[in-house]
Amino acid sequence: MISIVILGNGRMARYLVKQLHSHPQLEIVQWYMREPRGDENQFGVSMTTSLDQVGQSADLYVICISDDAIPTLAQQLAVDGLVVHTAGSVSIDALAPLTRRGVFYPLQTLGEETSSKLSQIPLCLEASQESDRALLERIAQAVEATHYWIDSAQRQILHLAAVLTNNFTNHLYTLSANLCEKHQIPFEILHPLILETAQKIKHLHPRNTQTGPSLRNDQNTLNNHLGLLDDKTLKTLYQLFTQSIQHQHEEKLQNTSQ
Amino acid sequence: MISIVILGNGRMARYLVKQLHSHPQLEIVQWYMREPRGDENQFGVSMTTSLDQVGQSADLYVICISDDAIPTLAQQLAVDGLVVHTAGSVSIDALAPLTRRGVFYPLQTLGEETSSKLSQIPLCLEASQESDRALLERIAQAVEATHYWIDSAQRQILHLAAVLTNNFTNHLYTLSANLCEKHQIPFEILHPLILETAQKIKHLHPRNTQTGPSLRNDQNTLNNHLGLLDDKTLKTLYQLFTQSIQHQHEEKLQNTSQ
Repeated sequence: MISIVILGNGRMARYLVKQLHSHPQLEIVQWYMREPRGDENQFGVSMTTSLDQVGQSADLYVICISDDAIPTLAQQLAVDGLVVHTAGSVSIDALAPLTRRGVFYPLQTLGEETSSKLSQIPLCLEASQESDRALLERIAQAVEATHYWIDSAQRQILHLAAVLTNNFTNHLYTLSANLCEKHQIPFEILHPLILETAQKIKHLHPRNTQTGPSLRNDQNTLNNHLGLLDDKTLKTLYQLFTQSIQHQHEEKLQNTSQ
Repeated sequence: MISIVILGNGRMARYLVKQLHSHPQLEIVQWYMREPRGDENQFGVSMTTSLDQVGQSADLYVICISDDAIPTLAQQLAVDGLVVHTAGSVSIDALAPLTRRGVFYPLQTLGEETSSKLSQIPLCLEASQESDRALLERIAQAVEATHYWIDSAQRQILHLAAVLTNNFTNHLYTLSANLCEKHQIPFEILHPLILETAQKIKHLHPRNTQTGPSLRNDQNTLNNHLGLLDDKTLKTLYQLFTQSIQHQHEEKLQNTSQ
């Protein structure tokens, strides 16, 4: 049995309490938070709001709080176990002066409504001490998740890539929904296209599936689309995508011909 | 039985020949193309490369050729049936001087590898004559597709929205894959995130699921990410998305407080 303490009370903390608590090889022995919301009892985990009350001898401490607050909490923690944070863009060294430091970063967007099991989410792991790798691997295996050893420099890149593919993509969906609403078009018409675009990358590299007027340099359609956009930021965004798609395509052609 | 002539030999033409031919209520009576590729016999459809040979009395003629070439072909067609094109960004009036004009626009990205059935693709329909609506509706019903009546002005917007959600989104996937490759990170780590982002819009409006450093105006992460991007176009793209996400969020807050 691996004993775990969760620290924090946001989305990630609540997600992990729910997900880790239900595995027979894992036990959440304590849940620390500064301010309860009042609904924590339903999780059936022993709670505390005092950092002094946090036991020192759990196997794993998982810090799930805002990025900026991680270093301060790490300095206040006097524990023997491995301490990990769950942040995409924070270095493992934010946990100094702790000697047993690590990262447990589930790469997924967690809404209140997230129904994905931990087994469906890639776990990006890091440990400052070689001997702590086995513990993190045992947890990944217990929850049946695919895990990757990703160092802090790589994790920054991964987090940036996640912003492009999740936050920016979602914003493109929003801009499209806005256009549809303005012209009385049901946005649902675009659902199958959106899903197909996302599903294709499972078996085809997105570089090889690019299509559209930007790639073809179809000036009629490009000018037509720019004329339809009345927002200056959107116009510039459209032009930049066109440039970037054409630039990418030239690089691909160059690489192919080498 | 509805008799159909397909005109063209690109992706859309081949997709429709395959899909429409297998339905008992539909018959592709002829397939016109300027230049065969040599593999057309497998489809089991009567072919011709001479426009003069195209019969005049089919129920429906489907023009699937490049946008620019549509008006010229329409002028050469002397037929009695309804003539439709399949282009997202071309007006129904590109088919003048034909009097029975229409549009049959399946909104999906069609790769050589597309496995989607026509029943899974929204059909955007338009007809210049009220009496031709029934014919297009019967075809949509025969292939069990959801159909929408979308006029030419709306279809232009829809095509623009499709470029944002398919072409530009796919380019964001490519940029992310490039970043991953450059830093020896398996791109597959991002697959579940990409899929979840796309699947969420089925039951939640993308406006309400936006997350990330741009929305939070998290200056540390934003500066960090800009520092990681060494390409000028990408930097500007990142800044524009941040502006546009924040602008959208302000509008949403204003609308909520009204």
